[in-house]
Amino acid sequence: MASLDLTGDIVDLTRTICDIPSVSGDERALADAVETALRAYPHLEVLRDADAVVARTTLGRDTRVVLAGHLDTVPIANNLPTTITGEILSGRGTVDMKAGVAVFLQLAALLDHPRYDVTYVFYDHEEVAAKLNGLGRLVRNHPDWLAGDFAILGEPSDGTVEGGCQGTMRVKITVPGVAAHAARSWRGSNAIHSAGAVLDVLRAYQPRQPVVEGLQYHEGLNAVKIEGGIAGNVIPDLCTVYVNHRFAPDRDVAAAEAHLRSVFAGFELEVVDAAPGARPGLDRPAAKEFVDLVGRVPQAKLGWTDVSRFAGLGIPAVNYGPGDPLLAHTDGEHVPVPEIRQALRVLTSWLS
Amino acid sequence: MASLDLTGDIVDLTRTICDIPSVSGDERALADAVETALRAYPHLEVLRDADAVVARTTLGRDTRVVLAGHLDTVPIANNLPTTITGEILSGRGTVDMKAGVAVFLQLAALLDHPRYDVTYVFYDHEEVAAKLNGLGRLVRNHPDWLAGDFAILGEPSDGTVEGGCQGTMRVKITVPGVAAHAARSWRGSNAIHSAGAVLDVLRAYQPRQPVVEGLQYHEGLNAVKIEGGIAGNVIPDLCTVYVNHRFAPDRDVAAAEAHLRSVFAGFELEVVDAAPGARPGLDRPAAKEFVDLVGRVPQAKLGWTDVSRFAGLGIPAVNYGPGDPLLAHTDGEHVPVPEIRQALRVLTSWLS
Repeated sequence: MASLDLTGDIVDLTRTICDIPSVSGDERALADAVETALRAYPHLEVLRDADAVVARTTLGRDTRVVLAGHLDTVPIANNLPTTITGEILSGRGTVDMKAGVAVFLQLAALLDHPRYDVTYVFYDHEEVAAKLNGLGRLVRNHPDWLAGDFAILGEPSDGTVEGGCQGTMRVKITVPGVAAHAARSWRGSNAIHSAGAVLDVLRAYQPRQPVVEGLQYHEGLNAVKIEGGIAGNVIPDLCTVYVNHRFAPDRDVAAAEAHLRSVFAGFELEVVDAAPGARPGLDRPAAKEFVDLVGRVPQAKLGWTDVSRFAGLGIPAVNYGPGDPLLAHTDGEHVPVPEIRQALRVLTSWLS
Repeated sequence: MASLDLTGDIVDLTRTICDIPSVSGDERALADAVETALRAYPHLEVLRDADAVVARTTLGRDTRVVLAGHLDTVPIANNLPTTITGEILSGRGTVDMKAGVAVFLQLAALLDHPRYDVTYVFYDHEEVAAKLNGLGRLVRNHPDWLAGDFAILGEPSDGTVEGGCQGTMRVKITVPGVAAHAARSWRGSNAIHSAGAVLDVLRAYQPRQPVVEGLQYHEGLNAVKIEGGIAGNVIPDLCTVYVNHRFAPDRDVAAAEAHLRSVFAGFELEVVDAAPGARPGLDRPAAKEFVDLVGRVPQAKLGWTDVSRFAGLGIPAVNYGPGDPLLAHTDGEHVPVPEIRQALRVLTSWLS
């Protein structure tokens, strides 16, 4: 089994864990190496669930923070082992997200008396179907392992704090009509024409751009599918509009649904699916300190990410990690070494 | 081969031709019987194209009228041979439309010196796909056989004159957009929302109800299909609306298209298909006399019928025949005997 030196140079550690292939579903070797390395530190309690490894301090601090990262990568594209040219480290996983994992592993090893209790979470199956997600499995099997006041996911964010995420909901609006032959259309009622009133609502809608805990979100309400009509000579008796709503994390799923039922009052509306957003938690003292140390204006995360899983446990969460997220999954995935060192420096300062 | 007595009782003749099965595609036996019977009359010139039979007088009159009926029926539903109870004749074809055919056959035999030249047209394949229609085939192969100043189709009309028919046109309106991820919808342009402007036009549209040659038509403009959307999290870049337009016979296809291009100015519009309407021709002297003899207020025909094929040749046409059109194609198809006799009486008076 590969042996990890958690306290050596952070770039060496990053390369070592990148060079242990861990495509989703094949994380075992890396998870074993991580578990073994962490068990060498008596200040850590180490737990394991399948190929997820959790390590935590138990110092009795008032505040506990969670640092989480996934061990898996998308498939290798002839871009391993890693290479380094000047200050650029290239190869599968360097951005998404083993540089972040390396930073968390080094913090776990070095910080035997952090100012907050810290839980480190290394999980599997992030890059595949949501139902396989290792963090989701931990939420189901061991929610207590994830307990905390604030969480950071080490996903690449170009060294900026990306806070929380917006929720998403899809609803189906059914507009009825009365069928008739098109030659005598006035005997029927055209459901497609009536659906124009739904599109009126959508066209007039002014999405909120609320500031939540210092971050500006941007909501959305959009038809993503419309269908109606039976035949070329029949007045349609049914038109269906599917609407996607993105909502800022100051609203939960129930509030978003109530909002849509109000916006579309008088229409038959059914919720097809929904996922809550996540509050950034930047109003928490530990989070404020962290943002100050990063020294850059935090940004709202608009898409849905794993931080929402923490939100489901009532834990505010942000993304923060080295690397350009636009390079994730590309064959030319690479990370500037200074960003790795900067992340390590910021997090060390914050937790020391 | 069955022998037809064209000069006997009209009810006997109706029953005889009903009792020769002639479901679409199987009209040969009846067409042969009709041709043979008509050839017995030296005042008629008899022509044949596949299973269509045409007979005409050649008296050199200034006016020629066309009386046309189809020989075929929808499939038999255990409703042959015909039965008669009191004054009701029941069975397949009694309404649609062998009573009308019987009346025309008797007129052809008896009227050796009608006041107008008359062309009698008996054709096949009316009850199936339009491309098989025997009248359409005659239009293509022998338009000269159909020449005339006014035409009557003997389809059931409850003894009322139903004049002309409305035209029909389908157009496809393509509304573009710009795709984007639903989490950042403002980076795109929602094609479904933009299609709301098409539905605005449709909802605000006031269809004309013009009086054409004394008959009131009623136009229509209706979406008959709408589709748009790629995936639940993508702002759609395309929405398509199919619109059906029914237009009164004071407009031809080109005028209807020009009207739609004006109504939907600014939208990408493509004509999918179109069929012209037919003017009723009730301003022609022969037609006026006929309507007076019928003695009932003529009605506009709103649906598209074979009269439109005459319109394509520049011949105004109406529907007039015994029987309730709502009984056509039903298992309980039946016709009141007085309606058959009345049609024979009216047409005889008109042509004598």
